[in-house]
Parts: sequence; C-alpha cells; structure tokens
Amino acid sequence: MNLDTLAWNADGLMPAIAQDASTGEVLMMAWMNRESLRLTLEQGVAVYFSRSRQALWRKGETSGHTQTVKSVQADCDRDALLLLVHQHGVACHTGRRGCFYFQLDADGEREMTTPQLTHEQMYGGGE
Amino acid sequence: MNLDTLAWNADGLMPAIAQDASTGEVLMMAWMNRESLRLTLEQGVAVYFSRSRQALWRKGETSGHTQTVKSVQADCDRDALLLLVHQHGVACHTGRRGCFYFQLDADGEREMTTPQLTHEQMYGGGE
Repeated sequence: MNLDTLAWNADGLMPAIAQDASTGEVLMMAWMNRESLRLTLEQGVAVYFSRSRQALWRKGETSGHTQTVKSVQADCDRDALLLLVHQHGVACHTGRRGCFYFQLDADGEREMTTPQLTHEQMYGGGE
Repeated sequence: MNLDTLAWNADGLMPAIAQDASTGEVLMMAWMNRESLRLTLEQGVAVYFSRSRQALWRKGETSGHTQTVKSVQADCDRDALLLLVHQHGVACHTGRRGCFYFQLDADGEREMTTPQLTHEQMYGGGE
C-alpha cells in the first residue's frame, strides 16, 4: 500500500473513524499520520496520532483498552479513514464505551450515557 | 443550543460523520461550520460546509439525494459530530451508497463496491 496515494492534509494528517465491527456503534474519531496508518495496517492494532502531544498514540497503551482492527477503508476522496475494530474495554477516555454522548438539539443538549469506569479504574493512580 | 460551546477548529469547522440510522453503515465524512450545524439542527436535513467551494453545501440539493437527520451527537472533546441519518438515494458522489469503498491492506487496496448510479443518473446533464 503506497500511503502517498492518500490525500493527507497540510499537516500530514487524516481523520480516522473507529466503528465497532460487531455492533456498528461509531466509537470515536481521531487522527492518523502516515506512520500511524502504516503501523495499524501492519500490526492490526489501532495507532493514531495525537495532535496535542504531536506523537504517535498507541490506543490503549496506558489503559489496556486497545482496538483490534478488522479492516481499514478510505473514502472516495481518499481523505478520510474508517476502521472497523473490536474494542477491548471502552473507547472513550471518560470511561464510556463511545465518545459521541452529547445529543444536540436546536434547544440544547443532554448526555446520553454515563461512564462505565472511573478515571482510576481506567488509568490506575497515574496520569 | 449555544454553538460557541463546541470546539471549532481554526477555520471554524468540525468533522461530521453521517451514519445510516437504519443499517449503521458509515456513509461519509464531511465538514460543518456553525451555520451548517444550526441549519441542520433547525431543519432536520443535513447541511455541510464545502471546503473546496467555501460555501454551505445543502446535501442532495443538486442530486435530490438528501439526508433526513434523526439525531446529532458531539463527542467528548466536542470537536467532532455524528449524524444519524436516513439517506435518500446514495450518499457518495460516485453513485455508491457510501463513500468508504477503498479497502486498504499493508499490501495494497481494492474497491469493495461499484456505483449503483451513473453520474448522469445522479446529476442529469448538468455539472
């Protein structure tokens, strides 16, 4: 796979959507650079790029909540990725299964889910 | 809904994922600005922002392949949106149901689907 054929943005990044391969739930959206996509394709485990840390982000490295990647798809414009994953534990750093939990309406918003795990349960005493 | 509470990027945009509310298929990823999200929430029909045209993009305005929006969700960081939609016709400008049709592997790629509609069937003689 020649990763230069994909349409990376000016920062060399691309949005990557992680969808639960079993339930279809959209778990999260993160970013990938060439190196993280290469590692993901080679290793079958999701590796993103953290824009805040400007470093590779091996999903679940700290929490153990890794994503086994079943398939990776690019879209028609080759500027977005969809990962079908088996999520071990939870995807969201808040302890929720998925990250999309604010339901928005014209009038306001509400939280649709509550955390399954506390911060300490996810990350131990550290961080 | 105070749209200023969301984390728009430096260009005032945010990624928006459209997922088929019935099948769970992730159909496409596009971008929204405040105005397109406000219109989407008020009208219940997907309005994106076209980065290439730098203008509101009323999905399906030309093709008739609109998206009725059942719900809009923001993620934990409030910097990405998930739309659950009823897709009328096809989502992809190539005439495919969804945009994520390039399956990527370490060794190469393959197209997973073929167009259901020709360009002329989608857009008539125009464009």
